[in-house]
Amino acid sequence: MEFKFSRVVIVGVGLMGGSFALALRRAGFTGEIIGVGRNPQHLQHALQQGVIDQIKPLLSAVQEADLILLAMPVAQTKALLQNITPHLQSTAVITDCGSTKQDVIVAAKKALGEKFNQFVAAHPIAGSEKSGVQAAQAELYQERYVILCPESDTLRTALQDVRQIWQICGAKIIEMSALQHDTIFATVSHLPHLLAFGYMNLILASDDSELKLKLAGSGFRDFTRIAGANPEMWADITCANRENLLKNINDYQLILQQLQRLIEQRDPEKLKEFFTSAYQARTQWKM
Amino acid sequence: MEFKFSRVVIVGVGLMGGSFALALRRAGFTGEIIGVGRNPQHLQHALQQGVIDQIKPLLSAVQEADLILLAMPVAQTKALLQNITPHLQSTAVITDCGSTKQDVIVAAKKALGEKFNQFVAAHPIAGSEKSGVQAAQAELYQERYVILCPESDTLRTALQDVRQIWQICGAKIIEMSALQHDTIFATVSHLPHLLAFGYMNLILASDDSELKLKLAGSGFRDFTRIAGANPEMWADITCANRENLLKNINDYQLILQQLQRLIEQRDPEKLKEFFTSAYQARTQWKM
Repeated sequence: MEFKFSRVVIVGVGLMGGSFALALRRAGFTGEIIGVGRNPQHLQHALQQGVIDQIKPLLSAVQEADLILLAMPVAQTKALLQNITPHLQSTAVITDCGSTKQDVIVAAKKALGEKFNQFVAAHPIAGSEKSGVQAAQAELYQERYVILCPESDTLRTALQDVRQIWQICGAKIIEMSALQHDTIFATVSHLPHLLAFGYMNLILASDDSELKLKLAGSGFRDFTRIAGANPEMWADITCANRENLLKNINDYQLILQQLQRLIEQRDPEKLKEFFTSAYQARTQWKM
Repeated sequence: MEFKFSRVVIVGVGLMGGSFALALRRAGFTGEIIGVGRNPQHLQHALQQGVIDQIKPLLSAVQEADLILLAMPVAQTKALLQNITPHLQSTAVITDCGSTKQDVIVAAKKALGEKFNQFVAAHPIAGSEKSGVQAAQAELYQERYVILCPESDTLRTALQDVRQIWQICGAKIIEMSALQHDTIFATVSHLPHLLAFGYMNLILASDDSELKLKLAGSGFRDFTRIAGANPEMWADITCANRENLLKNINDYQLILQQLQRLIEQRDPEKLKEFFTSAYQARTQWKM
């Protein structure tokens, strides 16, 4: 494997950034991996674990970088890119791993100006309800999709480089517009998180919530796992994908109203039909 | 361990019934375990696997039974009990494993008449999205709750016997009224199933449902696992717990409307609060 990069900077060495570093190492990357972040203890931990080679302040790290991965909370994208823009090498390539893409692209355009063509928005479909570098693993991106959302002015070479680096991490690449990305992920990822958070709040609103939680079983466990995801990150995602999510919640309520009518009609056959289409789609589904 | 029963009849030797048989054997039960069911192939399979000792027709099995476990679809309860009532020994005890309890008790009262005092309604909080005797396991009930819903006329001895037999299977016993049971499980089990079925149907209703399903990740996988549950069984449960479910779907829609307002207000702090209460409850929860 030949690597086009010799200095990789990871901004935010948590689950995503740490796993990216470990995946590069596993693929034989021998260049430098430099960690940048807000929390010195977390960075120190990443260094001791051998996930990164060095810790540097943001600007000096960026000055030497061939490839920069943004893996900090998405809401910080604009301010961070504004800081680093004057210090970027003209050959440097930037990618990210945020769950929404239109907002990241708007922020990157504003912050990077003419250098926006060096930025390739990416969303790796991988993760865990666990967070932090201690949850990082070299296999996180293995056989997972990474969505790339190039814009018309994105440099072809930057796009090629970012494709390659995610492939080196073991991922399968799909390209689509940021608009299509955000529409799809509103439905397949963001909505279920909102539904799970909302469902937990429904239980908490009842008098006997403790007894209810005590008696909840394995169906509850899996259905609500994503309600254990980081609230700050999900508030950011929800705001970033606002319009799509409002439409999805609305559409979902129409489905619930359809279900209510079926239940009111006391017709087990029609209910069974409603459940069967869902059942078939779910049992045929493979990740 | 001393067993008060020497002949146990299991009606419906699937996941629940088969696991009950295996748990009794593991606990040292040396009496007979007789399987009854509609599907001769399934019963033969259970016999070959050593889950049951004998296959018998319903009525001759019941005539000799000390303990009868109803583990067939709940909708068959009334007809089945009507058939067996004249053939029950006066010392026999009957229990079940249905997910709803008020409907089972109404059916059992009508069918059993004076012998209703021999019936103890039970709901083991254990299961799997897999079904059939091939999924049965001796540990299924280990450390799981079994809810018992005795009525005022239930024989104390029958209640004691049923408590003991589920404890022998490794379960922890909780007693409550059928009304309370159905209210609690509407929220912690039945509603999430309906929400997951409905969510799959939302995806199926979109033009690009194939692409959406292709890009769905591990959050989707867990959130929708229960949409792979048996549609017929869930149509029965939904009809049986109709009023509670209509109320729960209604309450859930109020929560979704609250969430919509928070999103419309573009206030990440209030959204974060909404998510944090859910997050805290979920991360503190243990099964």
